[in-house]
Amino acid sequence: MGLNLTQKIIKEHLISGSMETQKDIEIAIDSTLTQDSTGTMVYLQLEALDIDKIKTKCSVAYVDHNMLQTGFENADDHLYIKTVAGKYGIIFSRPGNGICHQVHLERFARPGWTLLGSDSHTPTAGGIGSLAIGAGGLDVAVAMSNGTYSMVMPKVCNIILEGKLNPPATAKDVILYILGKLTVKGGVGKIFEYSGEGVKTLSIPERATITNMGAELGATTSIFPSDEKTLEFLKLQGREDDFVELKADDDAVYDDTLTVDLSKIVPMAACPHSPDNVKPISELEGTRVTQVAIGSCTNSSYRDLTIAARILKGKKVHPDVSLVISPGSKQVLTKLSMSGALKDLIDCGARILECGCGPCIGMGQAPETNGVSLRTFNRNFEGRCGTKSAKVYLVSPEAAAISAIYGKITNPGMLGEDVFTDVEEFSYINDNMILRPEENPSKEVIKGPNIKPFPLNTPLRDSIKKKVVLKVGDNITTDHIMPSGAKLLPYRSNIPHLSNFCFSGVDPDFAKNCKENDGGFIVAGENYGQGSSREHAALVPLYLGIKVVFAKSFARIHKANLINSGIIPLVFKNPADYDKINAFDEIQIKDIAGQLKSGKTILASDKTSGRNLELILDVTEREKEILLCGGYINYMKSRRENCHA
Amino acid sequence: MGLNLTQKIIKEHLISGSMETQKDIEIAIDSTLTQDSTGTMVYLQLEALDIDKIKTKCSVAYVDHNMLQTGFENADDHLYIKTVAGKYGIIFSRPGNGICHQVHLERFARPGWTLLGSDSHTPTAGGIGSLAIGAGGLDVAVAMSNGTYSMVMPKVCNIILEGKLNPPATAKDVILYILGKLTVKGGVGKIFEYSGEGVKTLSIPERATITNMGAELGATTSIFPSDEKTLEFLKLQGREDDFVELKADDDAVYDDTLTVDLSKIVPMAACPHSPDNVKPISELEGTRVTQVAIGSCTNSSYRDLTIAARILKGKKVHPDVSLVISPGSKQVLTKLSMSGALKDLIDCGARILECGCGPCIGMGQAPETNGVSLRTFNRNFEGRCGTKSAKVYLVSPEAAAISAIYGKITNPGMLGEDVFTDVEEFSYINDNMILRPEENPSKEVIKGPNIKPFPLNTPLRDSIKKKVVLKVGDNITTDHIMPSGAKLLPYRSNIPHLSNFCFSGVDPDFAKNCKENDGGFIVAGENYGQGSSREHAALVPLYLGIKVVFAKSFARIHKANLINSGIIPLVFKNPADYDKINAFDEIQIKDIAGQLKSGKTILASDKTSGRNLELILDVTEREKEILLCGGYINYMKSRRENCHA
Repeated sequence: MGLNLTQKIIKEHLISGSMETQKDIEIAIDSTLTQDSTGTMVYLQLEALDIDKIKTKCSVAYVDHNMLQTGFENADDHLYIKTVAGKYGIIFSRPGNGICHQVHLERFARPGWTLLGSDSHTPTAGGIGSLAIGAGGLDVAVAMSNGTYSMVMPKVCNIILEGKLNPPATAKDVILYILGKLTVKGGVGKIFEYSGEGVKTLSIPERATITNMGAELGATTSIFPSDEKTLEFLKLQGREDDFVELKADDDAVYDDTLTVDLSKIVPMAACPHSPDNVKPISELEGTRVTQVAIGSCTNSSYRDLTIAARILKGKKVHPDVSLVISPGSKQVLTKLSMSGALKDLIDCGARILECGCGPCIGMGQAPETNGVSLRTFNRNFEGRCGTKSAKVYLVSPEAAAISAIYGKITNPGMLGEDVFTDVEEFSYINDNMILRPEENPSKEVIKGPNIKPFPLNTPLRDSIKKKVVLKVGDNITTDHIMPSGAKLLPYRSNIPHLSNFCFSGVDPDFAKNCKENDGGFIVAGENYGQGSSREHAALVPLYLGIKVVFAKSFARIHKANLINSGIIPLVFKNPADYDKINAFDEIQIKDIAGQLKSGKTILASDKTSGRNLELILDVTEREKEILLCGGYINYMKSRRENCHA
Repeated sequence: MGLNLTQKIIKEHLISGSMETQKDIEIAIDSTLTQDSTGTMVYLQLEALDIDKIKTKCSVAYVDHNMLQTGFENADDHLYIKTVAGKYGIIFSRPGNGICHQVHLERFARPGWTLLGSDSHTPTAGGIGSLAIGAGGLDVAVAMSNGTYSMVMPKVCNIILEGKLNPPATAKDVILYILGKLTVKGGVGKIFEYSGEGVKTLSIPERATITNMGAELGATTSIFPSDEKTLEFLKLQGREDDFVELKADDDAVYDDTLTVDLSKIVPMAACPHSPDNVKPISELEGTRVTQVAIGSCTNSSYRDLTIAARILKGKKVHPDVSLVISPGSKQVLTKLSMSGALKDLIDCGARILECGCGPCIGMGQAPETNGVSLRTFNRNFEGRCGTKSAKVYLVSPEAAAISAIYGKITNPGMLGEDVFTDVEEFSYINDNMILRPEENPSKEVIKGPNIKPFPLNTPLRDSIKKKVVLKVGDNITTDHIMPSGAKLLPYRSNIPHLSNFCFSGVDPDFAKNCKENDGGFIVAGENYGQGSSREHAALVPLYLGIKVVFAKSFARIHKANLINSGIIPLVFKNPADYDKINAFDEIQIKDIAGQLKSGKTILASDKTSGRNLELILDVTEREKEILLCGGYINYMKSRRENCHA
């Protein structure tokens, strides 16, 4: 029986476990990436792991998120990341050099390599044939420290691309079509592997748009074969030596298959407020637009911005529209300035922002109250743009550019064919904003006053007796737990400050109650911790002394983050028990370490009501060890000490 | 006896009064400008003045300050300004089109015209021979409503420029030299008029750098003659019809004269934390630099950025330096993209920010803790950059660019002569981000939820009895009264929100005390209200119910703003009385309207201590009328009603 592409790469990297679906595996990690909003915490954790040099072949620390610098905090974070990169042998990509995923694709990503990144859009590098997985920051720190990553072997789903896109349909429309079909939950526990005749009709930037937004399917990652298009791309980057051909065996087996006829794809838009709320643009034509934003790791390649420039050349942005463009990388911006496309973009009335994530993560360019924003980005959750009442539609650069001219959602089908002729790529490489460890002038790690130590848990004690400091309902997101946005993002390296805002939208007294009761327990309903992967949603509760979360069910990544922090995720054996616990009940779990070791069921008692509770601890043996040690960092340290002992 | 240039323009525009120094005059205003941070309030006031159309020949509303848009507030302000501009016949310069002073110079400013602007750097247009004065927002609103401005005739000081600059000395070094000589108080009550053989050696952008930073002398304005260089500049802007030749009569008389030999000027820097703390760069060489910022209304012309690009071409920004460049206008940015200079700037590792004020007003790019920032800007007050501990040096673009390469303050004298050959100017005009009233699609004025009505005072009552809600010492600045910065600037159109932060650094309970006591009095020492011209420092106290400020002395502009708000500025006849009043004393002023009408001395009594107080009201007859009406808006309305009656 042949292997699919995913299996081939995993086989090549397998350290322990077997490649059966849902089984624990440990794989070797070739490379890592971090961005600054998660990165400061990753490097604080790396420091806590107490190593000399990283073990990965290539680790890159990017600054692309927090670049507005409305106070000293951002610049202090940049300096910290630069200096810590110098210490551990990590490559530093300076602020202004571009979005991590775009730059990584250009300069670092390799077909056949594994990449672990502390950003959910790390799968972008799947466009070039990397097995590229987004993970919690601590996982990335551990991967740098020992070159490995542990996960559950996902299902592999084959997406067969047939035919060829008919302009004005684009790669963005392909992934929007798939999102509409499979929904934002359709990829959970899966890797999407692309194959079929249609693959070779797509350039690397186009493939990267598709793998990038595979993250919105909830997938572990997405991956394309490595072929002549890959070689062509690598040649332009002066990296033909990094090329290897990669494809699935002809008799490869998949867990699932979806066939997409590219020739049937039409221009699409994801409507407010979800990336899977997809409609053909033809059904939305005429909707008034007040902002158009082109950029983000999804659509800010030289190809994408050149096409936008072709559409906008000699035209004028509609007086009711603010058109903002954030190029994906310094390389893209330089090439646009060389080709003349940048002049056309400025000329039409576009506002050119710095290379970086910018408006895609709500760092700037919030639309006006009730504004309608057309964006080439990947997420359109309510309020993510910075304006709660705004409506965000996700579209291709083609649809965005033409709509900016008309001030309303416009079908790019009206554009002439000349717009869609292939973009002539050329090679221009200048890595002077990439600071390699040997050129890094940093002598010592510098931590500004906003960078605080992160909290470490302690090994499990015999017995815990605490109050329920918060009781919440179903579907609590990591945004509820730890709010984000332009006002709090600068404090990602300051857990004590963030802790004042933990659950602030749900219970403004949460932090106070934790402090007054010396921590405690949280009681929750279904799907606790859904949404973004931010580990701050575990680290901040840890800082506030949360020991256990009792829930009807947990979201996967947040559960892993809780375990990594040494907070025990327990599920009600009898969901009706949820109703019988009240806020501020005192709950005791006796001999918790012993109970953990001996089985899956944990017994507790509600001292206030006098009722007994049965709870399930659904974790792997490795996770059990992590919880007993008081979190992943302690676990890693104890493992190393045991090795040395 | 001949006239100087200032007198010629004022004579041409004189409506009432005589041109004797220190006498009240009223002049016709041809044009106005506003920026968005002061503009929303200006237009709210214009609406309150209840007119149909503006009376000026050319009024332009710019958006250049609050463009980060970290929440809906900025975008709502932009929309408000756009729609109100449409209603009243005001030209709207869209966000991204550039800094008001740079764009105004390029597209609107005319030799011989009067210009009133709600920004302290309005005198930039003096470089082209406008009489360009910065004023409070209400003055600008009134000027739009009736085409006039009342002021005291300033002294006119002649600065005679001899010789010719020797590279690497620049126009920036000329004004830094003058600042070092005259200090930041040297221009108070004066207009600086440039003449001499050196004038014709300076291009319009160079002249504009000098008049721009004349604001730092505290001057009313600065002005250059209009000559063949002016015509050359206007031709490039397709505006040769706007040219008139203008110069002082040969036998003109001045109040004062300063001669500057351009050939003796050397590269200078204003050291932390004042624009007049000037030293030759040669004395600062080697100082480590962590940030370099090129731009602002002082130094972001095509010439300035082209010279910077020449220096940076093929080089690499030092790894310890963040180089940020904010072009002055869309025209400048387009021309840079056409000439290839933009490519050179991107290529060397500069971070290209949007056209606008940006870091100069602390909107972004705050340096790291203890950072050292070299800036081509105009002000280096402590904390203005957004980082309290940072040290900011003000220099020319030449010095900034070369220092960015070396990571330390570097004398541009080391540069080759080729860098300093004249920049070849060319004409490129595209006004598609300038929305003329006839093209403005706005149907109605739109006010987002952050835009609140501004407070209006009431005519003076017979008697006032209130508590002293705050007692402060000497040299209280408008920054003390109404703090600014990236966190509060988005709320410039929301006085109720700002009021919570009034005096917050001095007395965190100030707003609470005002509310609990139904307003009250402020007691202050010398020089109350120094610093920026922001009228929010009067409007917010008005909102909080402040009726009178008792002080040893007042700063000029703030005193005018208090009067415009209907708050009475009273000076202790016997300064020792200051010591005898305590916070929360109750003070009564009987028959205040009658006392105001009858003379300069106002009697009050401290009901708590039982002491009587003698106070001086040092105002003109017109200002007295304004106070009696309860502020400038009420005064203007009553004047109009009297005319109609």
